[in-house]
Amino acid sequence: MFNTYWQRYLQLKKPTALYEASRHLPFAGGKRIRPFLTMISCESVSSDVQKALPFAAGLELMHNFTLVHDDIMDHSMLRRKLPAVHVKFGEPTAILSGDLLFAKSFEAILETSVDFSKLKQLQQDFIDCVIAICEGQQLDMEFEQQKTVPEQDYLDMISKKTAGLFELSSKGGGLIGGGNLQEVAALKRYGMALGLAFQIWDDYLDMSSTTTTLGKDIGNDIRNGKKTLIAVHCLSHATGKQKKLLDDIFGNRSASEHDVAKVYDLFSELGSVEYAQQRALQYTNQAKDAITVLKPSDAKELLYKLIDYTIRREK
Amino acid sequence: MFNTYWQRYLQLKKPTALYEASRHLPFAGGKRIRPFLTMISCESVSSDVQKALPFAAGLELMHNFTLVHDDIMDHSMLRRKLPAVHVKFGEPTAILSGDLLFAKSFEAILETSVDFSKLKQLQQDFIDCVIAICEGQQLDMEFEQQKTVPEQDYLDMISKKTAGLFELSSKGGGLIGGGNLQEVAALKRYGMALGLAFQIWDDYLDMSSTTTTLGKDIGNDIRNGKKTLIAVHCLSHATGKQKKLLDDIFGNRSASEHDVAKVYDLFSELGSVEYAQQRALQYTNQAKDAITVLKPSDAKELLYKLIDYTIRREK
Repeated sequence: MFNTYWQRYLQLKKPTALYEASRHLPFAGGKRIRPFLTMISCESVSSDVQKALPFAAGLELMHNFTLVHDDIMDHSMLRRKLPAVHVKFGEPTAILSGDLLFAKSFEAILETSVDFSKLKQLQQDFIDCVIAICEGQQLDMEFEQQKTVPEQDYLDMISKKTAGLFELSSKGGGLIGGGNLQEVAALKRYGMALGLAFQIWDDYLDMSSTTTTLGKDIGNDIRNGKKTLIAVHCLSHATGKQKKLLDDIFGNRSASEHDVAKVYDLFSELGSVEYAQQRALQYTNQAKDAITVLKPSDAKELLYKLIDYTIRREK
Repeated sequence: MFNTYWQRYLQLKKPTALYEASRHLPFAGGKRIRPFLTMISCESVSSDVQKALPFAAGLELMHNFTLVHDDIMDHSMLRRKLPAVHVKFGEPTAILSGDLLFAKSFEAILETSVDFSKLKQLQQDFIDCVIAICEGQQLDMEFEQQKTVPEQDYLDMISKKTAGLFELSSKGGGLIGGGNLQEVAALKRYGMALGLAFQIWDDYLDMSSTTTTLGKDIGNDIRNGKKTLIAVHCLSHATGKQKKLLDDIFGNRSASEHDVAKVYDLFSELGSVEYAQQRALQYTNQAKDAITVLKPSDAKELLYKLIDYTIRREK
């Protein structure tokens, strides 16, 4: 239903290169977790799930806009197993196509059929969410340059960069469905906890490569000094020689394959990988607890299933 | 009044680098033509000019967002006599700060005190305007790769990239001021004509360097094959040896200073510089004619003065 609906915002027009670039990621797949979350949240408090479609489209368009720009900033070459937009269409057109998707996301939000005060609230929440994502991305980039990052700062960063959009997905769905204050607050808490679990599980998945040689991504994350929860935990628990090892290798762009493997092993030795796994599970429990107040429904069951999916998926 | 008002959207917060980057251009000056146009358009149909402040702020924030991203795409190093945002803060933070200004521009629009249907119209017009600007910038970049560009395509490009925002500035001001259908239509026509005159005059100013050596910008525009109205006219009127000269030098990135000067001279010889000047004057006359229906007022006099300013300014 969603995939059919949101194509109205992705029509091919002239100049063709611009529109092809903005259609590249949306049509390359993606899990559609955010629009799914919006729609089942709406359904959990109402019978009219269709009413959430424009808002769901707005969130997914906005999510895709941030991916296009993030891939430029992070020099990522691949996304959804295809060349990133800037790799295929060049950086200028990629910047523009992100801007275009951002504009289209507002257009979709504007088409939500709710009263004046509710639309204004949804729009303000949407703007706040985009601003938080920009702040989160800036913090994520700055953290790479810092030697260590306190866990609370890491959690603040991912709540802005990732979890805020999950929070708005579920809260927005609840608002559009006409949920009462208690229901909307429950869905909001659910979305934030789910988003934190999702991001930490992502960090965990990236580090739990089962192949004998280290994946390219893991190597790059270690060389770039990327502050995942695993790294944050490891950096704050290392002592003596371990500390020296991290000082020398973590965030060292010219580190050898052999050195990178030592840091990777240290992540396990200090229990950092397991710690991240446990923290993700804690947040999934918070998400489960948050929605006990919702009345029983098929949609509520799907909200529970989405939690399980989040920590079972393998990317 | 405007400069004081819009600072509420430009407060310094954390992460500091992101907010400093997004404040760089807004606080570096600028003519504020667009917000001025919105406010006097509003005043020309109403007594309450203050009511137009949030919308005016939204347009100027959006304009600044497009400048930040355009400078990255065009590899421009300077803006308002200062280093461009990406030069001073790096490209990743510049992309983000543009996105942040874009989000803030919607926030400002959302604070306009008008009824539901009018706010929805202003927002839809605003979105359409941003989309047109993206399309115009893409066309402008594509034109540099084309040997020739028909004049109508050039006009279509600048109406999207530049004049559409002028059109929305005056039309939006008229709507917010509560102008009737005839008044709003008149202000809309005025804005479009003024915007076209503004951009063509800009092209003309860039080419009318009075110094004996060619400015760096003119040389770059010729080497990049930039399709200004002057170039468009010259390319379609050159014959024989002139055509050969343009073929060899216009759009040739390694052209010598001496060769560039030959093209520059050809622009005058074929009357292309004068032609652009005359076309700009034609559009200012269209702008004047458009607002004859407005009732006499100080604001209307300012609308006339703004036309004269547009073709008298020297940048």
